[in-house]
Amino acid sequence: MTAIRSVTLLGATGSVGSSTVDLLKRGNGRYRVEAVTAHRNAAALAQVARELNARFAVVGDPDAYRELKDALSGTGIEAASGEAALIEAAKRPAEWVMAAISGSVGLKPTLAAAQRGATVALANKECLVCAGGVFMRTAAAAGATVLPVDSEHNAIFQALSAGPREDVSRVIITASGGPFRTWTREAMRSATLEQALKHPNWSMGPKITIDSATMMNKCLELIEAHHLFAVEPERLAVLVHPQSIIHGMVEYRDGSVVAQLGSPDMRIPIAHCLAWPARIDGPAARLDLAQIGSLSFEAPDPDRFPALALGRRALEAGGAVPTVFNAANEVAVAAFIARQLGFGGIADLVEATLDAADRRNATAEPKNIDEALAVDNMARSLAQDLVPEIAAKAV
Amino acid sequence: MTAIRSVTLLGATGSVGSSTVDLLKRGNGRYRVEAVTAHRNAAALAQVARELNARFAVVGDPDAYRELKDALSGTGIEAASGEAALIEAAKRPAEWVMAAISGSVGLKPTLAAAQRGATVALANKECLVCAGGVFMRTAAAAGATVLPVDSEHNAIFQALSAGPREDVSRVIITASGGPFRTWTREAMRSATLEQALKHPNWSMGPKITIDSATMMNKCLELIEAHHLFAVEPERLAVLVHPQSIIHGMVEYRDGSVVAQLGSPDMRIPIAHCLAWPARIDGPAARLDLAQIGSLSFEAPDPDRFPALALGRRALEAGGAVPTVFNAANEVAVAAFIARQLGFGGIADLVEATLDAADRRNATAEPKNIDEALAVDNMARSLAQDLVPEIAAKAV
Repeated sequence: MTAIRSVTLLGATGSVGSSTVDLLKRGNGRYRVEAVTAHRNAAALAQVARELNARFAVVGDPDAYRELKDALSGTGIEAASGEAALIEAAKRPAEWVMAAISGSVGLKPTLAAAQRGATVALANKECLVCAGGVFMRTAAAAGATVLPVDSEHNAIFQALSAGPREDVSRVIITASGGPFRTWTREAMRSATLEQALKHPNWSMGPKITIDSATMMNKCLELIEAHHLFAVEPERLAVLVHPQSIIHGMVEYRDGSVVAQLGSPDMRIPIAHCLAWPARIDGPAARLDLAQIGSLSFEAPDPDRFPALALGRRALEAGGAVPTVFNAANEVAVAAFIARQLGFGGIADLVEATLDAADRRNATAEPKNIDEALAVDNMARSLAQDLVPEIAAKAV
Repeated sequence: MTAIRSVTLLGATGSVGSSTVDLLKRGNGRYRVEAVTAHRNAAALAQVARELNARFAVVGDPDAYRELKDALSGTGIEAASGEAALIEAAKRPAEWVMAAISGSVGLKPTLAAAQRGATVALANKECLVCAGGVFMRTAAAAGATVLPVDSEHNAIFQALSAGPREDVSRVIITASGGPFRTWTREAMRSATLEQALKHPNWSMGPKITIDSATMMNKCLELIEAHHLFAVEPERLAVLVHPQSIIHGMVEYRDGSVVAQLGSPDMRIPIAHCLAWPARIDGPAARLDLAQIGSLSFEAPDPDRFPALALGRRALEAGGAVPTVFNAANEVAVAAFIARQLGFGGIADLVEATLDAADRRNATAEPKNIDEALAVDNMARSLAQDLVPEIAAKAV
C-alpha cells in the first residue's frame, strides 16, 4: 500500500473507533483523515481529531458542541454537532469509512456513506439487523464495498475468498458460549447480572456481554451474515468454540472448510478492513496455537439457549421480524440490567414480543430507513409494555 | 462449471489416481478423458480407460504392453508403453493433467504437461523436491497453472487466496506427529518396522508412512512449499496437530491466520484442483467439528525428531541439497524396511549423506531434469555405500 487513503471515522471514541485510531496512528502518513465523530465525548473526540489531523469533527449531541469547539480552537479543525452533521461527515469525500456508531443513530450516517459508493467498514449492527435489505441494496446500487468489522463476519469474508459464492454449502459462525456455556437451564434462568457480565474471552460493553450470555449475539450475527453474504438461512450455522480462536468458517461444496483464526484483538479485523484488498502490519499478538494447545467445539444447545430458536425464527421469517427481534432484545437486556427481569426473562420477553408483532401483522419488510426506525420504535414499545407481564410470570 | 473439461491422468491406478477416477465418474459428462497412464498394472489401467472412455492408455513398463493392448481390443482406445509414451500422454491436448506418477519417473511427463501450459494438479513430489527451481520456472514460462494436490499444500493454496502473496508473514504446515509423537527419543531409536507403519490418521503406502513417523515428510513438504509458493525458508513452519483436521495455514502480516480444514479424504483436495477456480460437489464426509470435539497443537520437538533439523538444512542450503536429502531418505527408508537399519539410522544416514555430498561440493542447483536425475543417482549411491557404516554405528 503506497497510495494515501482518505478515511472517516464515524464513532471514533468507542472500542472499535479507538482500535481504528490506534492503527491509523501507526500508518506513517498512509492515511489522511477527513472526519471523525463521537456521540458526546467532546474531549476524547477533540484529542482524536488533533492526533489524526482530521478536517472535520462532529459530536452527535448538540450539548457537547461548545466543549468540542473550544477544544479545537486554533487547530483549523472544523467542529459541528447534531444528526445532520453526522450525515455530513459521512458524505464528505473519504474513500474509506469506519461505520462504528452504535445503535440506530448509526443508520443514516452509515447509509449516507454507502450511498456515495464509499468502502464502508461496517461495525454498526443495526444497518444489517434492522434494515439489512435496504442497506445492502443501497450499497450495491451505489457500487459501495461493505467490509465487515465484527470478528466473526470478517473471518467469513476472508474465508469466502477461497471460492465462488455459489459454491458455498455452509457458513459457520463460532460462539464462545459465554459465561453460562456449561450451566444447567435451571441455573441459567436465575443467573444474576454479575454472573452474566463475566465474559470468558472478550472485554466488551454490558449489552453485548449479556447478548453473549444468552447467545442472542449469535442470532443477530446470523441475521447480519444473511444480508452481508446473501446466504440462505438454512446454510447458516452456529458452532460453540469456547476459545474464540477460530472466528468463522465457510464450507464449500467439495468438503473443504476455510476458516480465519486469530488472537481476540479487534485490531486484526479492523486492519484487514483498513488495508483491503491488501494487508498491513498489525500490532495484535501473533496466534501461537502450540501455546494455546487445544481448540474445542460443541453443538449449541437449543434447550439451554432458547434465544437460538427465536433467532432462527426471526432469520427465517425475514421482513421486519429481525428488526422486532433486535428491538425486543434491547428492551429485555435493559430490563435485565435494571433488575426488572430475570435472565430467563430475556428470551421470554423476546418471544412474547415476536408473537405480539405477528398478531399485529407488523412484519412487512421496511422499504427505507424511516420505516425500519418506525418498526424498531413500535417493537420497543410493544416489548416495554410486556415487561411487567413477563417479570410476573417468571416469579 | 458447465464447459466440458479435457483431462489426463498420469498415474491413474495409484491412490491419488483412483480418487481422481472416482471424482471423474461422478462428473456426469463434465469431463472428457484424453489419456490415462499406469506403471505396470495393465488390467487396472484398462478398466479405468474403459470406464472413463479415454482415448489413450499408457503403461510405463513395456512388459505390460501386450496385456494392456489385449484388454483394450475392440474399444478404440489406443494403447502404448514406455517412457516416451508417458511423455506423449502428457503432451496430448488436455486442459487439466493430474500428475500422480510417483517417483523420479514422473519428472519428465509432468514437466511435459507444464511445458505446454496445462493446468497441472501436482501430486508428484520429485518435481518440487528434486527439481523445484527447474519445474516452477518452466511452468511460469509456459503459463502453466500448478495446483497442489497434497492436502497440506492444497490447504495453503486455498488459504493464500485471502490476501496478496507479499503480505504473507508465515506459512504453516501441520503434521500429525505420526505414531511416535509421544515416544521418547530412546524408544524411537529402536522402534520396529511394524510400529513405524501404524499411522494414526491416514492409510498410505509404507514409504510415506515411515516418512510420517520420522517427520521426513514434513521436511519434504517444506521444500515443496518453498517452491510452490515462493516463500522464503524462514517464513515456513511446521506445527504438530495430531487430528490432521487443519491441513495448512497462512498467517498474514496483520495477524489474521487463514486455514483450510477437512476430513482426511484426498478427494477433497483433488476435487478442489479438478474444479479450480470453481468448486464441484465432493463425496467426502462433511467436517463435523462438534463431533470431533477437540483439535490439539504442539510445537515439533527437534530433539526427538532429528529429521526436522536436516530438512531445514536442506531447505536453507537449496541448490541440489534437497535432491540429495530426498534421495538419501529414500535409501534410508528402504534400508529400514529391509531391516538393514534401525529407525534412528534413517536420520543418521540422511545426515551422513548430506555431509558426504557437501564434501564433494555436489550441491549446485540442477539446471534441468537430467542434471537433477544425475544428482539423485549420485546421492542414492552415496547413501547406499554409507548404509553398512551407519548400521554398524547404531549397534
